[in-house]
Formats: sequence, C-alpha cells, structure tokens
Amino acid sequence: MTEPSFTRRVPGDDERARDICDHCGFVAYENPKIVVGSVVRHEGRILLCRRAIEPRRGFWTIPAGYLELGETPEDGARREAAEEANVRLHMDRLLAVYSVPRISQVQLIYRARLADPSFSPGPESLDVRLFDPADIPRDELAFPSVHWALDHDAEAEAGAPPVPFANPQGASGSVMPNGERFGTDEM
Amino acid sequence: MTEPSFTRRVPGDDERARDICDHCGFVAYENPKIVVGSVVRHEGRILLCRRAIEPRRGFWTIPAGYLELGETPEDGARREAAEEANVRLHMDRLLAVYSVPRISQVQLIYRARLADPSFSPGPESLDVRLFDPADIPRDELAFPSVHWALDHDAEAEAGAPPVPFANPQGASGSVMPNGERFGTDEM
Repeated sequence: MTEPSFTRRVPGDDERARDICDHCGFVAYENPKIVVGSVVRHEGRILLCRRAIEPRRGFWTIPAGYLELGETPEDGARREAAEEANVRLHMDRLLAVYSVPRISQVQLIYRARLADPSFSPGPESLDVRLFDPADIPRDELAFPSVHWALDHDAEAEAGAPPVPFANPQGASGSVMPNGERFGTDEM
Repeated sequence: MTEPSFTRRVPGDDERARDICDHCGFVAYENPKIVVGSVVRHEGRILLCRRAIEPRRGFWTIPAGYLELGETPEDGARREAAEEANVRLHMDRLLAVYSVPRISQVQLIYRARLADPSFSPGPESLDVRLFDPADIPRDELAFPSVHWALDHDAEAEAGAPPVPFANPQGASGSVMPNGERFGTDEM
C-alpha cells in the first residue's frame, strides 16, 4: 500500500480548489464542521469537564463535540455529554449559534439539565465537576466560545429573552478574554 | 492512475466505521453538512428560485446551499443568494434551525431583504421571481424545509417572537406536505 498523497487543485466540475488524490483522483471535499454542546445546570451549578486530550488538555470546557452523521443536533449534544461526563441530559433550548470561520466551525450550544445527579469523567475527560457560577475557573477555560456560552447562559438565567445568542460583537473566536491568541484548533 | 476504491471499516483510533482508501489508507471522514439559506423579502413579496439542477429540477426553492470553509453562516447565505439569483442581501436575523438527519444536514435559515431590487437567474436557476405570499406555488416547492421556512417566515411577519423555529413537531424532512415521500437528496 502506498502513502496518502494529495494535490490541491480545482476539479473540472467545480470552482474551488480541493485536495485531490494523486493515486486515484478521489476528491476530498472538506466542509465546515458542526459542533454541538450544552451548558448543563444542576441545582444552580454548572457542569464542566477537564479535557484529557489536546488541544487544551487540562483546561475546562462544556461537554461538546462534532455532530455525527444521521444525528440531530440535540441528540449529538446528548451523546457528547454522555461520552465526556457519563451524564443523561434533559435538553432545554438552543442557547447560541456561534461561528468560528478561522477553523470553519459552526457551534450549536443548548441549555440542558441533568436528568439525574450522577456524573463521572469519560475517556476524554480528566475530571468532571459541578461549579457554582461564581467559582468557575475563568482563567482555565479551554476556548473563547466556552466563555461566551457561560456568559450567555448567565444572561439567559437572569431572564434574557429566549433568542439564541451569537458571537460577541466583533469576536471570531481567535482571542481568549485574557488576550491570549488562539492556535489552529478549537474543540 | 488507478480508480478510487474505498472499504468501510473502523480505523484503529476510532469507534465508527469510515471509508478508508484501499490504495493509501486515507480515511475519508464524512461529517454532517451545514446548509445556509434565506427567506428574502422585497416590498411584501418573497424571492424564489426555480432550480436548474437536480435534485428537484424545475421546482421552486429559497436561495440556499452548502456553507463553504472559512465562511460565517450569514456570509454563506449571502453568497448563495448572489450565486442563484444575482441579488445583494441585507441580512435580518436567524429564522430557523432545521435538522434533516436522514441526509445529515443542519440548515440555518435567515430572514433577509433585497439591498436593491435587481435580480436574475444564476447558473443553477431557471427563473427567479418575487411572489406575493398568497401566490407561492405550494405544489411546486422543492423540499419540505422550503415549506417550513415559508410558513415560519409568515409567522415571523405576523409578529411571532424572534425565537428561531425548528422542525415542525415530528417532522424530519422525509415527507412533502402532499404526502410524497422524499428520496436521498435534499438541497
């Protein structure tokens, strides 16, 4: 078996450059990816997972990941929470639609509640905890959009109308609130 | 050059079956796709495009298509409208988030207005017209979600709160309102 080898060029029936296999002509179309996740509350506290994998190993995040084929976004958000924190969720509603064009992601973030109070780290998590909102380790959050989602969830909890939030004005997910610039991966 | 040839099996570092190239071992990850589109209004009328391409050639649709890499959903919806109807849009707000898991699509549909009243068919359209809502050819709409989007836009126009709509209760995009069952492609 040979090694994968692709050349970037425009296929005959297309207008954009794509990665085309040098061996067989297969066109590896790349599309933006859908991330589904949830801000999970239980008795006023918020569930966060400490990442066991790169990028951002050791940092805290909401349960979230790539939507799989054949899933609804709500089902995907439930699956990710089950995989990362061994929880069962009651889905509430769509909290936010974020766009991170630098890494070609659209994120659909839901509000959810624990169906029962049991949780534990899945294979991609070092730790899972319920945090009082005031105790969330803000300097140890994994991604800009985790900040956004927690802020927007707090606004929703305080009575904001149930309209999904979007990226904060001017933000594209490239900078952490502390000014740290972001690399090429997110979530 | 040989022909593309893939075998479906679970890669060593994965839990799901993927298409793997028989020649070089390249894993062709397939992800759900994001469709972005808009219900476009101009002076009380709604812009529709008659499809020049399969699936559903000859049927009417709202401007919509696949989000490309590096785009925000709003930019993608604007681009699709420009390509299909040669229009410039003012984007209003997110009208709906639909899920069609059968074909692994998530659709983000926006409300929009024409920035100026000029329009004409792009290469993927046979015709582009502004319809009075009462005159929309309901029996000649391309996809279930076009029905949903037009219904939801009418509700928004009638004063429904600005919360994005979702699939009609129990609907997964497999059946047209007239009972016709749907094939394997959509949009």
